[in-house]
Amino acid sequence: MQNESRKMAAYRAQPAFCRGDHTLTVSSELFKYNRKRLCERLQANKDVPKGAIVLLQGGESETRHCSDHEPVFRQESYFHWAFGVEEPDFYGAIEVDTGKGIIFPPKLPDSYAVWMGRLLGLEEFRDRYGVDEAFWAEDILKVLKEKNPSTLLTLRGLNTDSGKYSREAAFDGISEVFKTDMELEVLRYSNKISSEGHIEVMKSIKPGMYEYQLESLFKHYCYFMGGLRAGAYTCICGSGDNGSILHYGHAGAPNSKEVMDVYLTWEASIIATRLISHVHSQPMESVSWVDMHLLADRVQLEALKELGLVKGDIDEMMKVRLGAVFMPHGLGHFLGIDTHDVGGYPQGCERIDKPGLRSLRTVRTLENRMVLTIEPGIYFIDVDDIAITEDGMELLTCVPRTVEEIEAIMEEGRRRPPMPLPQDMKK
Amino acid sequence: MQNESRKMAAYRAQPAFCRGDHTLTVSSELFKYNRKRLCERLQANKDVPKGAIVLLQGGESETRHCSDHEPVFRQESYFHWAFGVEEPDFYGAIEVDTGKGIIFPPKLPDSYAVWMGRLLGLEEFRDRYGVDEAFWAEDILKVLKEKNPSTLLTLRGLNTDSGKYSREAAFDGISEVFKTDMELEVLRYSNKISSEGHIEVMKSIKPGMYEYQLESLFKHYCYFMGGLRAGAYTCICGSGDNGSILHYGHAGAPNSKEVMDVYLTWEASIIATRLISHVHSQPMESVSWVDMHLLADRVQLEALKELGLVKGDIDEMMKVRLGAVFMPHGLGHFLGIDTHDVGGYPQGCERIDKPGLRSLRTVRTLENRMVLTIEPGIYFIDVDDIAITEDGMELLTCVPRTVEEIEAIMEEGRRRPPMPLPQDMKK
Ligand SMILES: [Mn+2]
Ligand SMILES: [Mn+2]
Repeated sequence: MQNESRKMAAYRAQPAFCRGDHTLTVSSELFKYNRKRLCERLQANKDVPKGAIVLLQGGESETRHCSDHEPVFRQESYFHWAFGVEEPDFYGAIEVDTGKGIIFPPKLPDSYAVWMGRLLGLEEFRDRYGVDEAFWAEDILKVLKEKNPSTLLTLRGLNTDSGKYSREAAFDGISEVFKTDMELEVLRYSNKISSEGHIEVMKSIKPGMYEYQLESLFKHYCYFMGGLRAGAYTCICGSGDNGSILHYGHAGAPNSKEVMDVYLTWEASIIATRLISHVHSQPMESVSWVDMHLLADRVQLEALKELGLVKGDIDEMMKVRLGAVFMPHGLGHFLGIDTHDVGGYPQGCERIDKPGLRSLRTVRTLENRMVLTIEPGIYFIDVDDIAITEDGMELLTCVPRTVEEIEAIMEEGRRRPPMPLPQDMKK
Repeated sequence: MQNESRKMAAYRAQPAFCRGDHTLTVSSELFKYNRKRLCERLQANKDVPKGAIVLLQGGESETRHCSDHEPVFRQESYFHWAFGVEEPDFYGAIEVDTGKGIIFPPKLPDSYAVWMGRLLGLEEFRDRYGVDEAFWAEDILKVLKEKNPSTLLTLRGLNTDSGKYSREAAFDGISEVFKTDMELEVLRYSNKISSEGHIEVMKSIKPGMYEYQLESLFKHYCYFMGGLRAGAYTCICGSGDNGSILHYGHAGAPNSKEVMDVYLTWEASIIATRLISHVHSQPMESVSWVDMHLLADRVQLEALKELGLVKGDIDEMMKVRLGAVFMPHGLGHFLGIDTHDVGGYPQGCERIDKPGLRSLRTVRTLENRMVLTIEPGIYFIDVDDIAITEDGMELLTCVPRTVEEIEAIMEEGRRRPPMPLPQDMKK
């Protein structure tokens, strides 16, 4: 057992995130490179003096309401972007001139080992997360004083004794909008696994199942097969006309309906597919996202007119923003560590106060290495995730979209041994 | 589709929590009866004047760190006990004299229907949760003024304009310690499903799987088969010597090890089983939980002495609290809506400042309708959940414990078609 303990420790000391060889290993180099990018931008910023240090606070451990239950921790996104630390209650610092990365783990009482397992030492933490230095969080003030920075650049105010160094600043070098190759690899992997999870649901779905059973299947696939412990957002498993509720699945409507008719849902989503294809065929880079939204509106209105559901002049419909009746949300949003990723409205960008357009989560012009969702919707929504490339776009999502593809997948599912359902079992 | 919409609405208007006929339906009567119990205790309390009203605040909706991600909502436990409301941002009131239950749902803007589905009206909320009256949360001050209570009994301070009524009070009538028949039924059901989930893991486990894959299987079983969306606590899936880490599975040790040897774990847990059996054979009611803990200590030390692992006089070992070296945690704790349920230390009960004993989550004398865990441990822990009855105890947990039972379950698992593992698939 000592041997196993060492194996575990060695595993944790590996400077990477890993859930077995069958999953994607995320090297700590990904985060190191993010820190490097940040430093380069700050070095190029003439408002940032020599000797500056970036100081970030990681997510804190939390308990549910007033109980002692600790939900599974998920790191705060900026901190994750810069350090890839999985655990709560860390601080992190980056020396802008040298690019040196420093983490400050919390020093837990020795007795915690009984509850949490062997506690890592500073050198182990340093190696585990691939940074240059590690100090205990309780020593942060002393360490920073010794480093004597000209300025502290922070995203959050830190409660220090001295106000001398501290400056509250929203600096634009820390950015998740432009993805590196390593980050794109992570996004490809999570799209692959979650696409497979959707296919698993397509194979398993049949009338008489409950929506939440499909949620359970999807989450199980992603974790069991892909090592993905936390979903980015609550599963939206609406069947029938629940498919038209944008954030279905929340506490007030918790995917609790019985699935009545599988085909009703698929057929409706085929309309959306056609629109997605149209949007995909457009050149992307240097195009304004607002124009993309308007294009989607126009294509949808044309389709609705063809079907005889709306009548009249398309230009007139566009003028009165009729499209917003059918697509009240934005065409899509940045995607990354968060589902609705940051950076949609940097300083100088403003929301457009018109129906539909005011819901856009970004109005920026598309550039290489941006990653977005495309989710045009008339009542039902289909979503694709894409990465903007120099010569077009890369489709990250890989789920079947055509009637034929979906039929083939469902037929494959029907040939499998039937899944035991509690509702079919004798009580 | 309109038909389906009505079906859904009707379903939500049913005064019960339900996830299909194959799961346990929890009637709103359960919560109504809790409110009745609370009123009876308050009516009998001479410090509570006529015309008092209990006012409670439900859990608030939250977002993760500074992002807009809303984790799945889980109700605050006191509020759940009194109202069974599944959704965030409610208030609730109870008229002590009449027992009348009143809820105050948040009034959401009409436009939210696009994201959340059709919004319920006040009468629908009233019927959905089986209370006597419903008003919008924004009208709470007006409604309470009209009711003109002599006193407001609160668990939390409410930020009202008038301090005249408000009194901050931790009243002891609200209690989850003594379970009603309806509550015991819920606890039996959740024990049944999670026991079956453990059996599913026993059938599936084999060397080469990862601990988190077993976590995923367990959670999937509980949700898919039993409709249990949220686990009470983070899965502790420690294999090998991780089985000795009490809260293994947390962010710093996220069930990420490969399972090496299945038998090592089972065998160690057999020792604990023997101790549990011994504890079970004791009469329970009117026994102090401290004495139960000491008894477990003694039984464990005797077993260790028999095995030649400790030497000397058992009474001497007890005097120096040697047992705490092997069982540093308490023998068990109250169980209910929370894993570590409330009520362990009511006013007048104090922690005992001695090794092992200071970790006890209650020092109370056992009474009928208390529900507790029994989890004696020497390095490895096995847990049983029990309800104290008038003539002994009811074992709620139903998992195999003997070598023969476990072998039979595992053999059954080996006869099933092999589960496809990503680690076995060709890349
Ligand atoms: Mn979206
Ligand atoms: Mn416990």
